[in-house]
Amino acid sequence: MVAEIICVGTELLLGDILNSNAQFLGQQLAQLGIPHYYQSVVGDNRERLKKVIAIASERSQLLIFTGGLGPTPDDLTVETIADFFGFPLIERPEIIEDITQKFNQRGRVMSASNRKQALIPQGAEILANLTGTAPGIIWKPRGDGLTILTFPGVPAELYQMWSDVAIPYLKNNNWCQGIIQSCTLKFWGIAESTLAEKVADFLYLKNPTVAPYANHGEVKLRISARADSPEIAQQLITPIETQLREIAGLDCYGANDQTLASVVGELLQQHQATLSVAESCTGGGLGHILTQIPGSSEYFLGGVIAYNNRVKASLLNVNLDDLEEYGAVSAVVAEQMAIGVKNLLQTNWGLSITGIAGPGGGTTTKPVGLVYIGLATPQGSVESLECRFGEKRSRDWIRRVSSSTALDLLRRHLLGKG
Amino acid sequence: MVAEIICVGTELLLGDILNSNAQFLGQQLAQLGIPHYYQSVVGDNRERLKKVIAIASERSQLLIFTGGLGPTPDDLTVETIADFFGFPLIERPEIIEDITQKFNQRGRVMSASNRKQALIPQGAEILANLTGTAPGIIWKPRGDGLTILTFPGVPAELYQMWSDVAIPYLKNNNWCQGIIQSCTLKFWGIAESTLAEKVADFLYLKNPTVAPYANHGEVKLRISARADSPEIAQQLITPIETQLREIAGLDCYGANDQTLASVVGELLQQHQATLSVAESCTGGGLGHILTQIPGSSEYFLGGVIAYNNRVKASLLNVNLDDLEEYGAVSAVVAEQMAIGVKNLLQTNWGLSITGIAGPGGGTTTKPVGLVYIGLATPQGSVESLECRFGEKRSRDWIRRVSSSTALDLLRRHLLGKG
Repeated sequence: MVAEIICVGTELLLGDILNSNAQFLGQQLAQLGIPHYYQSVVGDNRERLKKVIAIASERSQLLIFTGGLGPTPDDLTVETIADFFGFPLIERPEIIEDITQKFNQRGRVMSASNRKQALIPQGAEILANLTGTAPGIIWKPRGDGLTILTFPGVPAELYQMWSDVAIPYLKNNNWCQGIIQSCTLKFWGIAESTLAEKVADFLYLKNPTVAPYANHGEVKLRISARADSPEIAQQLITPIETQLREIAGLDCYGANDQTLASVVGELLQQHQATLSVAESCTGGGLGHILTQIPGSSEYFLGGVIAYNNRVKASLLNVNLDDLEEYGAVSAVVAEQMAIGVKNLLQTNWGLSITGIAGPGGGTTTKPVGLVYIGLATPQGSVESLECRFGEKRSRDWIRRVSSSTALDLLRRHLLGKG
Repeated sequence: MVAEIICVGTELLLGDILNSNAQFLGQQLAQLGIPHYYQSVVGDNRERLKKVIAIASERSQLLIFTGGLGPTPDDLTVETIADFFGFPLIERPEIIEDITQKFNQRGRVMSASNRKQALIPQGAEILANLTGTAPGIIWKPRGDGLTILTFPGVPAELYQMWSDVAIPYLKNNNWCQGIIQSCTLKFWGIAESTLAEKVADFLYLKNPTVAPYANHGEVKLRISARADSPEIAQQLITPIETQLREIAGLDCYGANDQTLASVVGELLQQHQATLSVAESCTGGGLGHILTQIPGSSEYFLGGVIAYNNRVKASLLNVNLDDLEEYGAVSAVVAEQMAIGVKNLLQTNWGLSITGIAGPGGGTTTKPVGLVYIGLATPQGSVESLECRFGEKRSRDWIRRVSSSTALDLLRRHLLGKG
C-alpha cells in the first residue's frame, strides 16, 4: 500500500513557486508511516495530467493531488481525473451552498466561475475545505484498490484539510501502518566521505537506516526508524545514535534543531562566560548567527564590524605596523582583533574573523578563500586558525563557512579540547 | 524537444528538504525557452530510479538529474543510469586527479570512497564541478535522440555547473528555440495588494505578462516576454517596465539582481559618502547584508554590534539616563546609536537598529515587532523611524525586515526624498 504525490500547476514547472506542498505531504506521510516512492509535477494540461494519472494509478494505491481546484479555466484536476476513469461530474448543491455562504460572509457575491468548484465525480465523497472555496474529493474510482485525495494548491487550505479530514480518514481506513521517526546528527570539521567511511557499517542498516548529507561544510547523518509507535522507533534509534556519537567524538556537535550557534550558546551559559566578536570579511554575519538564538543576550554582548583597516586599528587596537607588514588577512591581525574586542567589550572570550571572501582581492600568496580566525581566551592566551577554503568558492560560501568554523573553534575550546 | 527534471533523494520524499533545485531548473529552462512538462522525485533506490528513467526517456529528450552523485553507497544516480542503458562505468583518471587536488588544497587526504565519483559511463563527457568533488555527466546513450545531464544535489554546485557548463552546452547544441526573457522590478514600502491595484490593467497582458510576488516585505513584479530573440523580447518589456516604474515612483527601488544593499551602495558611491552601522536586535545582520556586495569596502567602513546596553553606552555614547528612562528600544536611543557610530567610525552616515525581535521580551507598551531605526546624516541632523511589525511575526522575519527597512530609509535620503 504505497502513496504517491502529484502536484498540478504550470507555476511549479516555471519555477514561479517552491513546491512546499510536496515537502509538507512527504513529512506527513513519513510521520503516518505511509510509504511513498514517487512525486510528480505536471502543468495545467489535460492530456499530460492523464498520462501522469495512468502511470501513478498502476504503481501506487493512494494518489494525493494538490493544485488545480480553483475556479479558472486552467484549474482542471478534478475534471481530468473523472474523465480518465470514465465517470461524469455531478454538481453538488451542498457545495454551491457552502461557497455562497463563504462569499456572503466576506460581503461578496459568488462568481459564476465558482460553480465549477461544485462539480464532483459521480461516486466521490466531498473532502471539506473550511477556509477556502474549493473542496477536495475522496474517491475510489476502481474500488478498494485505488484511493484518490485532492487538495487545493494554497498551502494553508491544504494543511487544514489534511489535518482535519485526511489524517482521520487515513487512520480509520488502516493506511497508517506504524510510523517513521528520525534523528539527525550534525557534524563539523569532518568531510562527508571521511565520516561515511568511519560509519560505513551503519550505512547498510535496514531499520533504522542511516544516511549522510552535506551542505555548506556541514555533514549530517539521518537515522530513520520505522515502527508501530514513536516509543519503539526511539528504542531502535537510541543505540545507533549512541554508537555514532562515540565514533564521531568531538566532530559531532549536536542533533536535530541544534546549530553551532545554539550549542556554543549553551556551553557559554554553562561556563557563565561572555563573548564578543570582531568581524572583517563576514561583516556582521557571525554576530547575526549568534543572535538568531533567542536569549543570546545572556552571553553575547556584541562586537565590532571592522571592515575597514582604520577601524581595526582605532577600535580594536590592531598594531598599524603589523597591518602594514603582515596585511589585514594574517594570523597576527586575527589574534590582535580577538584580543582587542575582548578588551573593548570586557568579555571572557573574543572571537575574530579576517579573510578574503572574493570574488576580487586575491593574490598568489593570499588567494580568495584564505581566512584567519582568532580566539582570545579567558586565561589571556590567544590563538589563530588558518583556513584555505579554495579560490573557487563563492563569496557567500566563504563567509558562511568562516562563521561556522569560528563557532566550531570556540565550541572545541569550551569543551576543553580546542 | 522537451526537457524533464528528475530529482533523486530519499530526503526529498521524506520532506527533510525543500526541492529548491527543481524550482531553480524550472526557472532556468523557462528563461532558455526549453519546454519542460514533467518533474519527478524518486528516492535513493536503484529499481525505482530505473522505472523513472524508463518513463522519462520515452516522453522527453533532455533528462536533467540532480542528486545522488556523492561518495556514499546511497548515491547511485550515475551507476543506475549507466546500468539502465547497458553501458559499463569507466574510472576517469582526470577526475581522481581533480578530487585529490581539491582535498590537498584543503589540507585533507582523499578518501577511498571518493573514487566512486570518478566512475563515468562509457562514452559520457564529464560535466566539470569547479567547487565540489562530484562531477556530472553529459551523455547521449542512444545518440542524438536523448541527452542526459547530471548534477549534484548541493544547490551551490548545481548553480555553478549549470551556469558555467550546461547553459553554453544547451545553447551550442540548439536546445534554446525562442526564449522567455524576464525583468523583475523590485519594490519596498508598498503592500502587494496596493501595488496590484495601482497596476491592475497590466496584470491581464498576454505578452509580456506581468505577475506580482511578495515575500519578507518585498514586492516584485515580473515582466516576462516570449520572443524569438532577446532583442525582440526586450522591445516588448521596455515600454511596460517604463510605465510600471512611473506608476510606482520611489517605491520601486530597482530590478533583477539589484538588492536594497546594492542600490544603497551605488548611491553612496555616487555621493562619495561612507556609512557605518550600529545594531542591536539585528546583531550584525545589517552589516552582513551590506557586505554581501563585492566592493562594499569602498563605502562601508564597519560598525558596532551593541547587543548589550553596556556596549551602547560605552562605545556608542548612548546616554545612560535615556536608556533608563526610555528603554533600549526607543526613538531616543536609536538616534543616539546612529550619531554614536557615525562619530566613532567617522563616517558621513550612521544607521542604527534597536528593537524587540522576540519571541520573548515584549510588553504591552513595547510588543514584539517594535523596532526603531535611527539615521544620522552628513549634515549633522538625526531622525528615527518607528516600525510595528506585529507580534505574530517570527524573530527571523522581524530581523530581516528591520535591516531592509533601514536600508530603504537611507536609500530615500540618498535620493533626496527621505
